[in-house]
Amino acid sequence: MSGGRGKSRSGGRGGDRDGGRPTRLVIGRHPVRELLRARRPIEVIRLQDTRDPDPLVDEIVALAEEQKVRVETVPRDRLDALAPDLVHQGLVATAPPFPYSDLAGAIAAAERAGDPPLLVLLDGVTDPHNLGAIARTAEAVGAHALLIPGRRSVSVTPVAEKAAAGALAHLRVVPIGNLVRTLQGLHREHGIWSVGLDGDAPSTIGASRLLTEPLVLVVGAEGAGLAHLTRESCDELVSLPMRGRVGSLNASVAAGVALYAVRAARDATG
Amino acid sequence: MSGGRGKSRSGGRGGDRDGGRPTRLVIGRHPVRELLRARRPIEVIRLQDTRDPDPLVDEIVALAEEQKVRVETVPRDRLDALAPDLVHQGLVATAPPFPYSDLAGAIAAAERAGDPPLLVLLDGVTDPHNLGAIARTAEAVGAHALLIPGRRSVSVTPVAEKAAAGALAHLRVVPIGNLVRTLQGLHREHGIWSVGLDGDAPSTIGASRLLTEPLVLVVGAEGAGLAHLTRESCDELVSLPMRGRVGSLNASVAAGVALYAVRAARDATG
Repeated sequence: MSGGRGKSRSGGRGGDRDGGRPTRLVIGRHPVRELLRARRPIEVIRLQDTRDPDPLVDEIVALAEEQKVRVETVPRDRLDALAPDLVHQGLVATAPPFPYSDLAGAIAAAERAGDPPLLVLLDGVTDPHNLGAIARTAEAVGAHALLIPGRRSVSVTPVAEKAAAGALAHLRVVPIGNLVRTLQGLHREHGIWSVGLDGDAPSTIGASRLLTEPLVLVVGAEGAGLAHLTRESCDELVSLPMRGRVGSLNASVAAGVALYAVRAARDATG
Repeated sequence: MSGGRGKSRSGGRGGDRDGGRPTRLVIGRHPVRELLRARRPIEVIRLQDTRDPDPLVDEIVALAEEQKVRVETVPRDRLDALAPDLVHQGLVATAPPFPYSDLAGAIAAAERAGDPPLLVLLDGVTDPHNLGAIARTAEAVGAHALLIPGRRSVSVTPVAEKAAAGALAHLRVVPIGNLVRTLQGLHREHGIWSVGLDGDAPSTIGASRLLTEPLVLVVGAEGAGLAHLTRESCDELVSLPMRGRVGSLNASVAAGVALYAVRAARDATG
């Protein structure tokens, strides 16, 4: 642990700059541990000076030492100021900006993985908690990348990384331009089928024959669902079976149930 | 629509009292519509005076008229003051306190339902968003009741009802005392098996033979999982299959995936 420069400024949207380079904050124990496990670059880890013993924090400190990442102990109010409105659990890291991937690289990695490619495309999801929770499930089922259109959507914020509980250290996130052209290109150039989750679709996900194929699962926003053009561009639309009277699920729950349905279909045939 | 008394006071924790009787606030379009659809009592619906045309609000006004529920139009800042920090979507209802159910009544209703009883017990879930999202999924798969221990857990707050998007108007919520004794009593007196979700369980949920039986699914808290005593009291512990490196899901996603696994098992044999 070193004293460090101690001259960082906190940016308004969770940013932090050391020596003028743009950086991001990664907040809480699981996100920071997974950054270290994934050997992603970290500039400094700030640790609260007064805290209860915690094996997870010990693991973080050991990993940081091994990777020669600087660890500073600071008073709690310093962390509170760095991460207002977020439960930082006594731990805030400063890291380079989130390393987005490009589509070609993500697909190439997926094609090398042995399992047919499984991508998740978020259409108009604006809540970073949903982005984080969906990333967490995507990583858990072995999906290869998360695709996020640049407009009408979230990007990877400190809140999203916190909600992902570290999954975003292991999952490729790909910003895409035009959603419709992206789906067309995935199909034409890579044989990847698109299946959209749509509460109004008469066919349920269990009946789909596409789940075991190279696949991009398209998930819509809370409330609004898939945009009209997105619906028209998917190879297939499927719903989740509903027996209740309300007829919709939280967006990250719906994505989770769908991703596990894909996993189950693949495990049954694999 | 009537002018109403206009003398309500806003309580600090979302409460509202008209004439000294305790009441609760129900916030947003879906929760209020589902209250009306379920014909639950409502004292007054307050509607923002300036708003865009919205078929959902028209439906709410029509249902309120039919059920002789008072509708007041008020300025936006009145609603903002009633429901601070919540997206009220121009609509706030005042209703009697949340009508919790008792266990015997909930089980009797489940046993009448034709499907084997399916209950969900939350162990230490403290986030009202998770309670709401889990209630929403429970209602969607046809579960019969949500059981919440009195200690270490959430109750049905305005945030939870909002996150449930109306599902809590249709689903029984049962406060329970001692969790271990409740599980024992469910088994002994009603033949209801308990299956706990536990990330460390070697057996995955798909292998369980209990899903088609009368069942209480036990879901733990974000992070901590099931309490030690709860784990020991369940008839079976199951995990969800995990292929990633992080190894855990958001609590409401995990509950959603498990509830859909129960549904799939029942639909396959039913």
